[in-house]
Amino acid sequence: MAGEVNVLTLARDLLRCASVTPDEGGAIALLASVLEQAGFSVHRPVFSAPDTPDVENLYARIGTEGPVLVLAGHTDVVPPGDEAGWTHPPFSGDVSDGKLWGRGAVDMKGGVAAMVAAALSQVRKGPFQGSIVFLITGDEEGPAINGTKKLLSWAQEKGERFDHCLLGEPTSVGAMGDTLKIGRRGSCTGRLTIHGKQGHVAYPEKTQNPIRAALPVLAALMQPLDEGNEHFQPSNLEVVSVDVGNPASNVIPASVTALFNARFNDLHTLTSLEALLRARVAKAAGGIPFELTFASSNSEAFLTAPGPFVDLLQKAVEAETGRMPQLSTGGGTSDARFIKDYCPVVELGLVGTTMHQADEHVPVDELEALTRLYSRILELYFSG
Amino acid sequence: MAGEVNVLTLARDLLRCASVTPDEGGAIALLASVLEQAGFSVHRPVFSAPDTPDVENLYARIGTEGPVLVLAGHTDVVPPGDEAGWTHPPFSGDVSDGKLWGRGAVDMKGGVAAMVAAALSQVRKGPFQGSIVFLITGDEEGPAINGTKKLLSWAQEKGERFDHCLLGEPTSVGAMGDTLKIGRRGSCTGRLTIHGKQGHVAYPEKTQNPIRAALPVLAALMQPLDEGNEHFQPSNLEVVSVDVGNPASNVIPASVTALFNARFNDLHTLTSLEALLRARVAKAAGGIPFELTFASSNSEAFLTAPGPFVDLLQKAVEAETGRMPQLSTGGGTSDARFIKDYCPVVELGLVGTTMHQADEHVPVDELEALTRLYSRILELYFSG
Ligand SMILES: [Zn+2]
Ligand SMILES: [Zn+2]
Repeated sequence: MAGEVNVLTLARDLLRCASVTPDEGGAIALLASVLEQAGFSVHRPVFSAPDTPDVENLYARIGTEGPVLVLAGHTDVVPPGDEAGWTHPPFSGDVSDGKLWGRGAVDMKGGVAAMVAAALSQVRKGPFQGSIVFLITGDEEGPAINGTKKLLSWAQEKGERFDHCLLGEPTSVGAMGDTLKIGRRGSCTGRLTIHGKQGHVAYPEKTQNPIRAALPVLAALMQPLDEGNEHFQPSNLEVVSVDVGNPASNVIPASVTALFNARFNDLHTLTSLEALLRARVAKAAGGIPFELTFASSNSEAFLTAPGPFVDLLQKAVEAETGRMPQLSTGGGTSDARFIKDYCPVVELGLVGTTMHQADEHVPVDELEALTRLYSRILELYFSG
Repeated sequence: MAGEVNVLTLARDLLRCASVTPDEGGAIALLASVLEQAGFSVHRPVFSAPDTPDVENLYARIGTEGPVLVLAGHTDVVPPGDEAGWTHPPFSGDVSDGKLWGRGAVDMKGGVAAMVAAALSQVRKGPFQGSIVFLITGDEEGPAINGTKKLLSWAQEKGERFDHCLLGEPTSVGAMGDTLKIGRRGSCTGRLTIHGKQGHVAYPEKTQNPIRAALPVLAALMQPLDEGNEHFQPSNLEVVSVDVGNPASNVIPASVTALFNARFNDLHTLTSLEALLRARVAKAAGGIPFELTFASSNSEAFLTAPGPFVDLLQKAVEAETGRMPQLSTGGGTSDARFIKDYCPVVELGLVGTTMHQADEHVPVDELEALTRLYSRILELYFSG
């Protein structure tokens, strides 16, 4: 028999766990205990990989039949930074002025607490046709190597299958529920090194300054990539670092390295984009030797096409808030990039304004409103 | 009464002093001893400045009347680098295959030894009308703060006045004496920081990428500055480092810094060049905030106009080598940039091919030929 869980109490207790990636900080253990008491079967797989810390994850399920709705999230948080910048200590879980304060309040312990409270309320109402699965990682803000990606693969090997996933990231922009993320742009990180010929600055004719060669190449990389489409904004590439590290003003350096990242829509795949960028570099470099490598963590763009699941979510938001949410594919990446290979995934959660900042906080009434929204979604989903 | 000094022995003994800037290594002491024995009055002032090591210098004079000819040089050397790259240990002073081997053989202990040997030979011949001054520093290859610049000022305060200066740097290109350096380009080092607005790469519209802004600015800096003139090649500017230091591919950085150096001819002064570069940056930056600072060690271009002193040197070279030397203002800077404020200065010395390299060396016969050339210059100079 499931006990009642108060969303504010659970969120506050989660905030008091200092679960900065990769530390579990007690957050996974707390969720495991609450879900176990409510009748979920709970697993806490730990994943490892060379050169990355071990990370604890949580997989919990109630029900044996379909449809299977996954509620996904993460308990790890980004570091609080300088604690002097916080009015309320980052791991205090203080409640004041009608707000709950702390690192992770919106990203995304508040969302996780609301999903758990809504699931337990659904369970408390009695038997329902279907299953609820919690997919909670402690490695979303970090390298994301020992997190959701491996947890999905682990579950698949156990024979688990999913119908839909709701990811509780803080996707709302101005008001809770105003935005459904139905896709994400892909992310393509690359590193470009342009080689020249080192020498004394007084004899440039004996050298080849790689910085001269790099300027048109970097400009070519940042040229527009497309004009966007119905669901996506235009793709965009930013060179985010250029480094030589030459302290000697009388020496022309041997090479220059640039780091760049493109956020791209579904007009490209990683393969086509990498080929396009390589062609741009080769053309602009005009025979100057270069090396161009792409990160192994790069991710594809994806879209959860509008359809019954998205309709259901929109209907639930409208019923709770009186507003139709807009469909978005903007912003950064999330673990949805892994989940989309297993089932349709949509993201819906708190207003993200204070995420990753000092004095991150969530209004208590917004936390409660999100819990009601998630409860309504579960009710609609399992009522067929 | 001056003893005879063998140029090879003196050069070898100097090479055995490990006088990597700022270490005196025994080289100044050795010269002081030799010059003192020959009748010079010798001073060894040590100069200091905040954040730089103390450096020992040598000032020696024989004679009390004019004309005063300064023989200038340095005993400090650049580091030998990986000693495994040397066939003969860098401070061995080995003589083999008719060559003298070691760090400083051409730059410029060989030249200093030849000047000392020539001066002592002039002294040995008996009284002459005029004075010979040695101006030897241990801080030419380093910051050049506690070296020739302060030594000149120190001498001026003592009431010393100079008519002409011969600087024994390795200025020859293909054959000993083929080139007289009658001027040097100026050197202008600057640092440019372009400011943007930091933010997440997924939201470029909330940021201002300073790297985008920097590309046209750096290109503008490297545009041609002039076409040169009779005695000077065109001025040239190279951006030698660009640095951001941002390891995070998902973050657009706050700023980018570039280091540049211009070698400029006498169509510019430092003041006019700095104003020109500042105007180029401001125009290309188009309102983007930037900081542009110039190094305090920047130096003006200068020319020792052809005239009687240059004629005398050319005549001496022609008599010794059978070739008229060409007049040059090319290459890097030297301490001539300080001396030219006190008297006309011309540079003439060994072939510099192996300077600053592993297995730096000088042919013994070239060392002896340079000594004969310097002796002839002294003879011509003091015969009026
Ligand atoms: Zn998050
Ligand atoms: Zn030198």
